[in-house]
Amino acid sequence: MTQWIADLVGGGAAQVLQVDNILYDGTSPYQHIQVAVSPLFGRMLILDDAVQTTELDEYVYHEMLVHLPLLTHPAPRRVLIIGGGDGGTLEEVLKHPVEQATMVEIDRAVVEVSRAFLPGIAGGAFDDPRARLLIADGIAFVRETADRFDVILVDSTDPKGPGVALFSEEFFAMCARVLTSGGLVAMQSGSPLYQRDLLDGVRRHLSAVFPLVIPYWAAVPAYPGTLWSFTMASHGADPRNVDDETVVRRTGGFGLRYYTAVTHRAALVLPPTP
Amino acid sequence: MTQWIADLVGGGAAQVLQVDNILYDGTSPYQHIQVAVSPLFGRMLILDDAVQTTELDEYVYHEMLVHLPLLTHPAPRRVLIIGGGDGGTLEEVLKHPVEQATMVEIDRAVVEVSRAFLPGIAGGAFDDPRARLLIADGIAFVRETADRFDVILVDSTDPKGPGVALFSEEFFAMCARVLTSGGLVAMQSGSPLYQRDLLDGVRRHLSAVFPLVIPYWAAVPAYPGTLWSFTMASHGADPRNVDDETVVRRTGGFGLRYYTAVTHRAALVLPPTP
Repeated sequence: MTQWIADLVGGGAAQVLQVDNILYDGTSPYQHIQVAVSPLFGRMLILDDAVQTTELDEYVYHEMLVHLPLLTHPAPRRVLIIGGGDGGTLEEVLKHPVEQATMVEIDRAVVEVSRAFLPGIAGGAFDDPRARLLIADGIAFVRETADRFDVILVDSTDPKGPGVALFSEEFFAMCARVLTSGGLVAMQSGSPLYQRDLLDGVRRHLSAVFPLVIPYWAAVPAYPGTLWSFTMASHGADPRNVDDETVVRRTGGFGLRYYTAVTHRAALVLPPTP
Repeated sequence: MTQWIADLVGGGAAQVLQVDNILYDGTSPYQHIQVAVSPLFGRMLILDDAVQTTELDEYVYHEMLVHLPLLTHPAPRRVLIIGGGDGGTLEEVLKHPVEQATMVEIDRAVVEVSRAFLPGIAGGAFDDPRARLLIADGIAFVRETADRFDVILVDSTDPKGPGVALFSEEFFAMCARVLTSGGLVAMQSGSPLYQRDLLDGVRRHLSAVFPLVIPYWAAVPAYPGTLWSFTMASHGADPRNVDDETVVRRTGGFGLRYYTAVTHRAALVLPPTP
């Protein structure tokens, strides 16, 4: 009997994927964690029934969450990642000449399962001396830390389970407090097709704290509807002002497959959606 | 019992849509024709189990198949549409000051079912005195006609059933013969995610006939993976040379919802796909 998983996106639409086998199935204090193998996407990390990342296309999401905002900052030295347990965001951040990348993931099990079953996503990132991994509540960390960061990247699940407060105005105000002058924040903000309220809510809540709020997008085939949104916010740093030469110079040798000077510009034009 | 339809796109991935009811279900000499109602997309025209167009998002596909190529021609007067039985492409063409739009659809039943169940897609296009509707084999028409056209739009199904020969080099050579000097052809060329071979084949076959072959894309939520490709070919007319002012001037008053000067440019940058 063929096994399938379904992600119901609303309005009676579903993304359905065949699963050859389940390599891991467990429940942490925070969420249901699975690693399944798809004929199309390879190994997939699934949290609370939503595909988070896959071997085939993890680079799209991680490159776009990281490089567009990091290029928008002239010289990011200290980066904070909230969530991102699979390590893919950490890996991309560490391609830049940062001094330290702090990753605060609430669920130790996500890190452990990812390292065991999807080691290619993080590569050697967790062993990089510039990486600081904290298993902790990201909101409590941002509320209480005395550290300051040039860029904050929120690499969360959908706003359910542990991720819900990461989409609130209160959290964005805490982020603004710990940013350096010229700092910026970027986050995944859901499907512009099937989570329009989420994207609009992120924009509204960020706009209450930051004068500049800019959505952008990438094509992530493993996500329902492929189109995925991110939102960047700052007190002035503007991704529209990053010139092609800067992108080429600062990412040369990174071995990127999605993020380029061309996709940087194209990502800033969200396709109109019904 | 809830009713669902599934479009298997390969690699064990499927787009699945709930269907509230089926308004029409019949078989023509050419294909299986259905009109179903989706809670998300409204009425949907389904040919041989593939969603062709829906009330919610038909405008995306039709605006992008038509306006990007028509704007690339300085003054299209005679336009040929191959396929396009639902009339949506015809409607968009007739927004331009063309002298005549000839539509050659092989399957009378698609026209009749669309006019009965999806009249909003064509609007009044079939009654426009500039519209010439021929129920005939498009390939035979192009092979034999003495007419000449400024723009040819191939609005076909996937290359199976009646549509298969519309993707061949032989057909593109016939198209080149009936184009006026400065003329161009554009066509839907499938999903860049799930029909990569189709898109690559179209590009290869068009390149054997035309020196300039340019793919572009649009976000059509009702199609599997949302991303959809089109390909334009010409002996020199280049959509990259269309300036914003021309788009605004020539489409002002059209009441478009997807095609703009911004989406014209953005459509020419296909997102990288795995």
